[in-house]
Amino acid sequence: MTDFLPTQPYKGSRDFYPEDKRVHDFIFAKCREVVQRYGYREYDGPILEPFELYAAKSGEEIVNTQLYSFTDRGDRRVAIRPEMTPTLARMVAAKFQELPKPIRWFSVPNLWRYERPQRGRLREHWQLNVDLLGGDRGLADLEIVQIAVALLSNFGAPKQSFEIRVNHRGLVDALFREELKLEPAAALKLVKLVDAKAKMKPEAYAAGLLTLGLDEKAQARLDAFFALRLENLASEFPGPASAELGTLLQTLGDLGLSEAVRLDTTIMRGLDYYTGLVFEAFDLNPENNRALFGGGRYDNLIGLFGKQSLSGVGFGMGDVTLRNFLEGHRLLPEFSSFADVFVTCPSRNELEAALAISAELRGAGLRVVDALSFEGFGAQLKSAAKQGCVFAVLLGEDEIRRGVLAVKDLRSGQQFEVERRGLAGRLQQSLRPAL
Amino acid sequence: MTDFLPTQPYKGSRDFYPEDKRVHDFIFAKCREVVQRYGYREYDGPILEPFELYAAKSGEEIVNTQLYSFTDRGDRRVAIRPEMTPTLARMVAAKFQELPKPIRWFSVPNLWRYERPQRGRLREHWQLNVDLLGGDRGLADLEIVQIAVALLSNFGAPKQSFEIRVNHRGLVDALFREELKLEPAAALKLVKLVDAKAKMKPEAYAAGLLTLGLDEKAQARLDAFFALRLENLASEFPGPASAELGTLLQTLGDLGLSEAVRLDTTIMRGLDYYTGLVFEAFDLNPENNRALFGGGRYDNLIGLFGKQSLSGVGFGMGDVTLRNFLEGHRLLPEFSSFADVFVTCPSRNELEAALAISAELRGAGLRVVDALSFEGFGAQLKSAAKQGCVFAVLLGEDEIRRGVLAVKDLRSGQQFEVERRGLAGRLQQSLRPAL
Repeated sequence: MTDFLPTQPYKGSRDFYPEDKRVHDFIFAKCREVVQRYGYREYDGPILEPFELYAAKSGEEIVNTQLYSFTDRGDRRVAIRPEMTPTLARMVAAKFQELPKPIRWFSVPNLWRYERPQRGRLREHWQLNVDLLGGDRGLADLEIVQIAVALLSNFGAPKQSFEIRVNHRGLVDALFREELKLEPAAALKLVKLVDAKAKMKPEAYAAGLLTLGLDEKAQARLDAFFALRLENLASEFPGPASAELGTLLQTLGDLGLSEAVRLDTTIMRGLDYYTGLVFEAFDLNPENNRALFGGGRYDNLIGLFGKQSLSGVGFGMGDVTLRNFLEGHRLLPEFSSFADVFVTCPSRNELEAALAISAELRGAGLRVVDALSFEGFGAQLKSAAKQGCVFAVLLGEDEIRRGVLAVKDLRSGQQFEVERRGLAGRLQQSLRPAL
Repeated sequence: MTDFLPTQPYKGSRDFYPEDKRVHDFIFAKCREVVQRYGYREYDGPILEPFELYAAKSGEEIVNTQLYSFTDRGDRRVAIRPEMTPTLARMVAAKFQELPKPIRWFSVPNLWRYERPQRGRLREHWQLNVDLLGGDRGLADLEIVQIAVALLSNFGAPKQSFEIRVNHRGLVDALFREELKLEPAAALKLVKLVDAKAKMKPEAYAAGLLTLGLDEKAQARLDAFFALRLENLASEFPGPASAELGTLLQTLGDLGLSEAVRLDTTIMRGLDYYTGLVFEAFDLNPENNRALFGGGRYDNLIGLFGKQSLSGVGFGMGDVTLRNFLEGHRLLPEFSSFADVFVTCPSRNELEAALAISAELRGAGLRVVDALSFEGFGAQLKSAAKQGCVFAVLLGEDEIRRGVLAVKDLRSGQQFEVERRGLAGRLQQSLRPAL
């Protein structure tokens, strides 16, 4: 006896059946709409990249425990992309001279990380990546935060459903390194500790601080920093970083976005390459209170590839958490059917006439399913309904002779007659625009 | 001194800069348009699959020399998909009972094979996969061939630019196995020999035939078969296969497709899983006379996964050869610019007004690029032109006060004035619908 193969997809990955693929495509079509209206251009790269691309710059955790890498048949070490930024950097560096600046690019890659699958986290996910390279720092940061808000708003997300929490790594570094005198490595540890704070017990957090040599006075200073409000930003933590952040938040307020964007000095972003603005979008649904996506400003994106330098600001938004957000707030639409019209065909004698009608309807932009068996109207209508069609055109010898067709609306069960030459127009009229 | 990383993509793969990505998206958007009008539904699966999925069914050449496979951190042997059919089979088998039949599905996966890169063949390519599972064989075959023609016609391909060459494996098998008495393995070798015939020297081909034990009489019979025309099909090679093929070609002729589709008994398709109709679309460009894509009918798609059985017909069309075809026949359109309007902003004082105008234009569906520096009009117009915008809105203190905006058409250099409240309408009117 044969052993049958299992039908499950590889662990942590997903099959997209047509119903899922449609939701997936809807989500990223709405995203593309927004970023294209800001003049962003879509790019893509291969899913396999040289291993060195990640070894050099991605975080240690990614490379050592999460990267899918292997040696190809030609002895090259390659990796499946775990993030898009290294590919972006490589592509920009390759055409640095000829690309007009500022560069506004986006991409929707699938990314792989070897993770233990859990809610909101899978081994394969898709991620909208938006990056703005060059230009005035403040204006570029402003644009990226506006886009982050616009992306969620474009799904119809109400004001109370999310907020963008912003911080500035310059502010953090001034406090951690200059004021608290932490060495870079210790400062990075503190960043990670603060990142994890929300998920930790207070004692564990306090113990972590002690390990870093932070005394009570330092801890009080940290607490004051984390409780900081926009009004006191400039006075309590003066400097270029707080000025930049203050101007950003002020301008966003002028644009009517003060509810959607607020200062949150606990936002750190673990990756050490952020150098200015950092932000995270949060789902405010009490049942799903979590970060939706995040990003920030980075320096010298292309330094690995040559002596040129280019700084930028951007973010990545994953499909799994975004879909959770949209479902939680009931922001996914009802989708229309996959097909509009079923054209019946009782026997081979009517085949030519039936296919001519189908061709005409397709020419008018309708989605038409042809009968794939010669059966009676009863069986064909059943098939039309199972295939999710909205209308069925009932075609028989008699109808062809008379030049008048019977049409059944499969939603209502109503049947009506249409002259052959008016068929396409009548059906188009009855169908709402498809999603 | 640091060693810089190279900027090339991994061998045999491509970077899609925005100009390339746009062509790529255009090509598959046109394909989706056609198959969706035939009621096909898009699906997708993960790029990593269990190795066993290919070991069992894909050709030996693929698994032994072309498959990208490796062992993951959890000791599972996985492979990057080299073709989509095994994933299709797995997904259909997993939901066999609940999926309404016939199943009309399509997908646009990226596929990987370890190959020596050459014209029309890369390690990573994208492929439109169209499959129709279930239904009457003859009607299903007819639909798939119609779709193959419609796909190329939808790009505006003229009649003389391509043709679909069809054959039937039942016809081939009757001749090779029953009449020439070749064992299955020898018959398969003959199939491959015939597939390669066009690229071989006549002597090598004849020598290959001799190796298979085919004498002069057998060779003459083969030659007669390969010269077969539709008129003589039923009389010279009677049987169910020639009847099926004859009906198909007859019906296609009735539908006006006799120029686009013709009998060609040399079409074999190497893969041994085809069991009925086989076909290949050919580019008739004398400078690129080659197969564009091909497919056919297969039995028992899901047999690896259980006792159920489902036969189907389908094809896969790769992006590399398709793009060569479209370029060769000049069927790619001129693309519109990536952005419609650039909104200038001379200083921070005008920022709020400028961003309000941008927001309004975006709300009207326009693609708007904001200035990312406070500079004079000259510098900003230069930037607008570099970014490929069609219009620039010239916004200054004076314009804001007067409520009248100056707009420069960057294509013609013409400048005109528009009232603030009529701006969006005026610009929309001047822009042709974007691709």
